[in-house]
Amino acid sequence: MNFCSDNAAGASPAIMESLLKANEDLAMPYGNDPLTLSVHKHICDIFECDAEVFLVATGTAANALSLSVMTPPWGGIFCHKDAHIEVDECGAPEFFSGGAKLIHLDDKQGKITASGLQAGWDGIEKTVHQVQPSGLSITQATEAGTVYKLDEISDICNTARELGLHVHMDGARFANGLTSLGCSPADMTWKAGVEVLSFGASKNGCLAAEAVVFFNRDLADGFTFRRKRAGHLLSKMRFISAQFHAYLNNELWLDNARHANAMATRLWDGLRSITGVEFLNPVEANEMFVTLPARVVDGLEADGFQFYRWGDPQGTLIRLVTAFNTKSEDVDSFIKSAKSHS
Amino acid sequence: MNFCSDNAAGASPAIMESLLKANEDLAMPYGNDPLTLSVHKHICDIFECDAEVFLVATGTAANALSLSVMTPPWGGIFCHKDAHIEVDECGAPEFFSGGAKLIHLDDKQGKITASGLQAGWDGIEKTVHQVQPSGLSITQATEAGTVYKLDEISDICNTARELGLHVHMDGARFANGLTSLGCSPADMTWKAGVEVLSFGASKNGCLAAEAVVFFNRDLADGFTFRRKRAGHLLSKMRFISAQFHAYLNNELWLDNARHANAMATRLWDGLRSITGVEFLNPVEANEMFVTLPARVVDGLEADGFQFYRWGDPQGTLIRLVTAFNTKSEDVDSFIKSAKSHS
Amino acid sequence: MNFCSDNAAGASPAIMESLLKANEDLAMPYGNDPLTLSVHKHICDIFECDAEVFLVATGTAANALSLSVMTPPWGGIFCHKDAHIEVDECGAPEFFSGGAKLIHLDDKQGKITASGLQAGWDGIEKTVHQVQPSGLSITQATEAGTVYKLDEISDICNTARELGLHVHMDGARFANGLTSLGCSPADMTWKAGVEVLSFGASKNGCLAAEAVVFFNRDLADGFTFRRKRAGHLLSKMRFISAQFHAYLNNELWLDNARHANAMATRLWDGLRSITGVEFLNPVEANEMFVTLPARVVDGLEADGFQFYRWGDPQGTLIRLVTAFNTKSEDVDSFIKSAKSHS
Amino acid sequence: MNFCSDNAAGASPAIMESLLKANEDLAMPYGNDPLTLSVHKHICDIFECDAEVFLVATGTAANALSLSVMTPPWGGIFCHKDAHIEVDECGAPEFFSGGAKLIHLDDKQGKITASGLQAGWDGIEKTVHQVQPSGLSITQATEAGTVYKLDEISDICNTARELGLHVHMDGARFANGLTSLGCSPADMTWKAGVEVLSFGASKNGCLAAEAVVFFNRDLADGFTFRRKRAGHLLSKMRFISAQFHAYLNNELWLDNARHANAMATRLWDGLRSITGVEFLNPVEANEMFVTLPARVVDGLEADGFQFYRWGDPQGTLIRLVTAFNTKSEDVDSFIKSAKSHS
Repeated sequence: MNFCSDNAAGASPAIMESLLKANEDLAMPYGNDPLTLSVHKHICDIFECDAEVFLVATGTAANALSLSVMTPPWGGIFCHKDAHIEVDECGAPEFFSGGAKLIHLDDKQGKITASGLQAGWDGIEKTVHQVQPSGLSITQATEAGTVYKLDEISDICNTARELGLHVHMDGARFANGLTSLGCSPADMTWKAGVEVLSFGASKNGCLAAEAVVFFNRDLADGFTFRRKRAGHLLSKMRFISAQFHAYLNNELWLDNARHANAMATRLWDGLRSITGVEFLNPVEANEMFVTLPARVVDGLEADGFQFYRWGDPQGTLIRLVTAFNTKSEDVDSFIKSAKSHS
Repeated sequence: MNFCSDNAAGASPAIMESLLKANEDLAMPYGNDPLTLSVHKHICDIFECDAEVFLVATGTAANALSLSVMTPPWGGIFCHKDAHIEVDECGAPEFFSGGAKLIHLDDKQGKITASGLQAGWDGIEKTVHQVQPSGLSITQATEAGTVYKLDEISDICNTARELGLHVHMDGARFANGLTSLGCSPADMTWKAGVEVLSFGASKNGCLAAEAVVFFNRDLADGFTFRRKRAGHLLSKMRFISAQFHAYLNNELWLDNARHANAMATRLWDGLRSITGVEFLNPVEANEMFVTLPARVVDGLEADGFQFYRWGDPQGTLIRLVTAFNTKSEDVDSFIKSAKSHS
Repeated sequence: MNFCSDNAAGASPAIMESLLKANEDLAMPYGNDPLTLSVHKHICDIFECDAEVFLVATGTAANALSLSVMTPPWGGIFCHKDAHIEVDECGAPEFFSGGAKLIHLDDKQGKITASGLQAGWDGIEKTVHQVQPSGLSITQATEAGTVYKLDEISDICNTARELGLHVHMDGARFANGLTSLGCSPADMTWKAGVEVLSFGASKNGCLAAEAVVFFNRDLADGFTFRRKRAGHLLSKMRFISAQFHAYLNNELWLDNARHANAMATRLWDGLRSITGVEFLNPVEANEMFVTLPARVVDGLEADGFQFYRWGDPQGTLIRLVTAFNTKSEDVDSFIKSAKSHS
Repeated sequence: MNFCSDNAAGASPAIMESLLKANEDLAMPYGNDPLTLSVHKHICDIFECDAEVFLVATGTAANALSLSVMTPPWGGIFCHKDAHIEVDECGAPEFFSGGAKLIHLDDKQGKITASGLQAGWDGIEKTVHQVQPSGLSITQATEAGTVYKLDEISDICNTARELGLHVHMDGARFANGLTSLGCSPADMTWKAGVEVLSFGASKNGCLAAEAVVFFNRDLADGFTFRRKRAGHLLSKMRFISAQFHAYLNNELWLDNARHANAMATRLWDGLRSITGVEFLNPVEANEMFVTLPARVVDGLEADGFQFYRWGDPQGTLIRLVTAFNTKSEDVDSFIKSAKSHS
């Protein structure tokens, strides 16, 4: 039973069926096929706007390509100091942007704040000698397992707009954030001021499918060339499209996220009564960082549960991630094991 | 009936089955799963050597990543003036290498020659003012539908070695070239002097699967970082691996290529008797460039056949590509249609 | 007696005096000093327009920075196949542009032509797969020692404008071209359609001084950052400005160029009667490529004259360059020596 | 009277004389002249080793070029959070390295420490997902006006070596640090473990002259191409060489630095008795950051003294920099003015 990552899960059965169906006929390559076009349209419908949509296979590609349109090579992008783009993408934003700098903002429960953004801005000397910020990236749901409230997003985006900064949302766990808030996709993005979204699907039941969604269509200028020259235009594009097709139909994406979130809540609820337990942050989506007594952590591992000890490989702070296909029995077993060792 | 591109075909049924099977369980992400490791080993077995192997989803990624290890940003890569890396990848080699220059070599039936390489080298002023070549890329089978003979490859690689140039092979249609020659994978690569191979599978029955194979393992140093920061390390890597697993088993890859080549030969054989027909090059793999009388080209289109008019959209030079799943009936219909209009 | 390069000459005495004078007082660094501002204004006056001006120390910096504003990293710049940016700058344009491609145009006496530009354009497939041209660079006076006529420049710029291409002029030998034509600086640049100029001074009597002049001021957006992050913003900028100050005063720049051109004409006039002499191109500025009998070339070297054998180090095609301080006696000695060996 | 920056000063008279002398004759361009070669040798002599030396015109070029050899594009360079390379070079290190990341280390009196370096290293996850550090840059004298002791440098370099990190020293104020310590150039660099040095001269009496000195000659491989394609190979190189020639002769460089440091000490000594004065750090070279009562700062400005209010343009923390040509009378006037307003 694996609580390491939502990347460890495979794909939803409906996704696989969609792939099989897409394979039946010939189709024009490079996205010039009807299925790809219908997915673009479907995404626009879901977001209630006329966006520009580009499909890619990885989250790093979606993020780095998105950021590259928001900054010149000599500019900077504000982000949370632990953002995926900063600590988990091996310098992809720097590569795709041609050398732009990620500028760290301080943490509040895995989030940045409007006032933190303002403080970051104020710390920049406005001269030719220093890298000038041109954009901002926030992550929803966050890497810390928390979720920005709508007014938090609005406040940040308002400050960004006043400062002349473009806004990107890393939505690798977009559906987990969305169902946690219970709002509409439009509310959580362009209505709050987000201009570009990495709309993730791989972690939530697809194989390899992400969409870059431009609510600010001006930013999409030249993007088709950026994607191609980065090697991210798939020749048989319909196979990404087929995943999105099934993902968005019948609310599969929302159901998957709701389930993953529910499993996380169940896990949190079961663990919180253990003596000595400490949650780093509120559990608002599908992952949590929790400190447990050493004997409990050891015991869980001895019982065959898989998860990451976070930061320190000998430490007792662990990360637990649930997925669209996490079974409630497995969650219950985990809780039972933890309690048995406490 | 589509003769536009081998990218228009879907995937072989065995590939799809392999995907379904790979989806059954959890697996560690980012290639740390048993299936990926077994594919690496399988590729080494096929090439009869201990190579370094990296899987990616697109041919442009495989090529551009490969070239990036062979040149510093201020260096150059020799290639055929019509090479895919030069005319079909939107500057990906320049992007991945940090600005290296592709230096054109002249054409002989879609190939470069050892003497052409030497002439290219001699044309470079050996000073700090000029971009100095550091590598060479050849394509097998070529973009022109021809196939390098083994001694041609050896001659080119020998000249390259004398000049201190690394050698890459773009094997987007590797299997088509291989089965055309009827030699072993080792013969056509490292035994002839090739150091890095883009081992393509997408065009020959997979969805999106390419391997970068380093016969010169020293060149692989740092490659894992290059792949990651380019966004080409898939989190659910096993889905590329699953494709290769089926592709390499039971000689599927060779059977697919043999079929595509046979269909091309059948097409050539049927067309060559038409008055006014002219083949640009010998037909040695699965594509051909052929000039036909205007009324024949128009007639074929009117009959519903799809293909590209090459270069000039009003011209009579057309490209015909066959694939692993091209039906002999469709080839025969094409020939019949062509003859009926001639 | 050195006819190798106009870079072998030192600086005009007036330039050195200006440097000494600029050294007398303190001055704000990074170009925020009165002398730099007055030079910017002087350049605008000379070009009869309100241009944006940026000073740098090298021609490669001026060219590569200029080109970088005219193309996205995935774009291309048309240029003569032997342009300095292509063969003498070690990939600087690729570096500064983030990987753009230089696309060669054919030669006509060291120049490109409007029809050659159109043919180059027509050869580009207008798809996402191929690098799309976004600019054009011409060199005045050319690397071949020839000079574009005003209508040639206009024709090329008109074609470029129709194709949506920006136009740069590499004016490393701007003054030589200008005095050869006898027109105004405005006529030879923005009035003919040039948008950005590398206005060279180093080869014509300065130490290290070049100006990037934006007639299309929109293209200058962000240029101050580009210059800084490339390390080309001198802290003690006034020392470049001091050079330009003296260079532009009292027509020093024009006098220097007129002299260099006159010396070239004198050389040509003296050599052309030698049996077997062949000039590659008309001699219109301050350099020439001339084939002489082997015994003449050998004899000149034996007599202590310095020059480059062009292309082939054993060959008889030599390049001769005159400078602002070439002495007529030296020219006459050269001619006399050549004749004595013929 | 200007205490803003050592960049506000001009050049020492001996430097100007050397320039005039270098202008007398023709010389081969691009550094192939005897003067340049003799300067290379002189620098080796001063550092008591066989180093590789490259001259450039700016400190940003020297630093960014140096760093680019120490890291792959996907690597990182540790540095002080306020290092010039981080806050004053507009992203030049990112540009020249192709996108490497600067990783901040904490401050102790403007310095980093061996333990701080170790802590920074420990904070990096050693996986393909995170940018891996490959080098370290320290600044001597520091941006804070302090000077690393020899054992501090050794300790840092030892730790760096253990971690497999290359070490660069930004010596924009090298002479100020050196004369402050009173040790030999070799002691302060390669004997302590430094592999590459930006050997600054512009701030200490030259116009525009910096040398990149490779004690680890292996790192210099390809550097000549890096310099050229960045536009930092001057055609009339001898004019940088001429500056260094005079700079290094007769201990001009040491005398200049000693004077600047002495003026700083004199300033510190005069100001420290003022009530409410507070020095941010010890004054060990030629600059200081000092908080003075608001009326004192206002009074100094009213009396015509020029300096920067640091960070906050309304604040009372000011930076004072002395130079090779700062007059003791001016220092005394400054002190007198400050005291009169206190």
